[in-house]
Amino acid sequence: MPDLTPEQARGRFVSARVARLATVSAAGRPHLVPVTFAAVGPDVPPILPATGPDVLVTAVDHKPKATTALARLANIAANPAVSLLVDHYDEDWTQLWWARADGNAKVLTPEHDRDAHAVAVGPLAERYIQYRERSPAGPAILIRVARWVGWQWTG
Amino acid sequence: MPDLTPEQARGRFVSARVARLATVSAAGRPHLVPVTFAAVGPDVPPILPATGPDVLVTAVDHKPKATTALARLANIAANPAVSLLVDHYDEDWTQLWWARADGNAKVLTPEHDRDAHAVAVGPLAERYIQYRERSPAGPAILIRVARWVGWQWTG
Repeated sequence: MPDLTPEQARGRFVSARVARLATVSAAGRPHLVPVTFAAVGPDVPPILPATGPDVLVTAVDHKPKATTALARLANIAANPAVSLLVDHYDEDWTQLWWARADGNAKVLTPEHDRDAHAVAVGPLAERYIQYRERSPAGPAILIRVARWVGWQWTG
Repeated sequence: MPDLTPEQARGRFVSARVARLATVSAAGRPHLVPVTFAAVGPDVPPILPATGPDVLVTAVDHKPKATTALARLANIAANPAVSLLVDHYDEDWTQLWWARADGNAKVLTPEHDRDAHAVAVGPLAERYIQYRERSPAGPAILIRVARWVGWQWTG
């Protein structure tokens, strides 16, 4: 069976080091950017709007000049629906697989959501040495995943 | 300067073996799937709606049970705006880069656009041995790129 179970899709997804984040503009155009990310465990302080195995976090490394300066943030403000994709390519197509997380996003800014932002970026610092050396100064994006989908080649 | 020129972005994009295709549903939700793709050169027969260095093609390997059975096809029918992303991840973040193609898509089916479909999948067969062994039987998606955008790490 080519489809992964939701648990398999989640497992492969959260093990990856990079994902691609799709958002939609107010005008209905898709936008794509690669993102580092982390799963938000249930053990984080309860200040976040959502926690648990179906919550992901990604962040903007540096403060944009305005919160709306980045397309992904403006898009989420207009339409919280997001999709994230992890995939594996190989010239041997029997090795292909992908895993996707569809859900809704919420932006936490260091200015307006200081405590929640500080908690949200914790899992990123645990996962990436670069974030331990310098914490993300820009907004964090919290994604509540409504659906895990995955596929692998079966010929 | 972190931004790539459009020409640099296009160059890196078309050299990649896999991209991620984002489409938007009629309800405004983004959808993501990895795709193999090829640039459509100006030397293909003039039967295609568009050719040249700013036209990409991707295809569905097998016939879906109905043309609308695949989310990407239903989405493009409702909203032709698409975005495709190629990215490079490395634990050394100074090596990061990505290249993106924003444009509009048109679906060519073997049933309704037989001759154009046969021409459109030609560049895919040139690029992937799997498509030389078995031509894509499903619809082809032709993307006219309106904007090439790219970025690389500069610290």
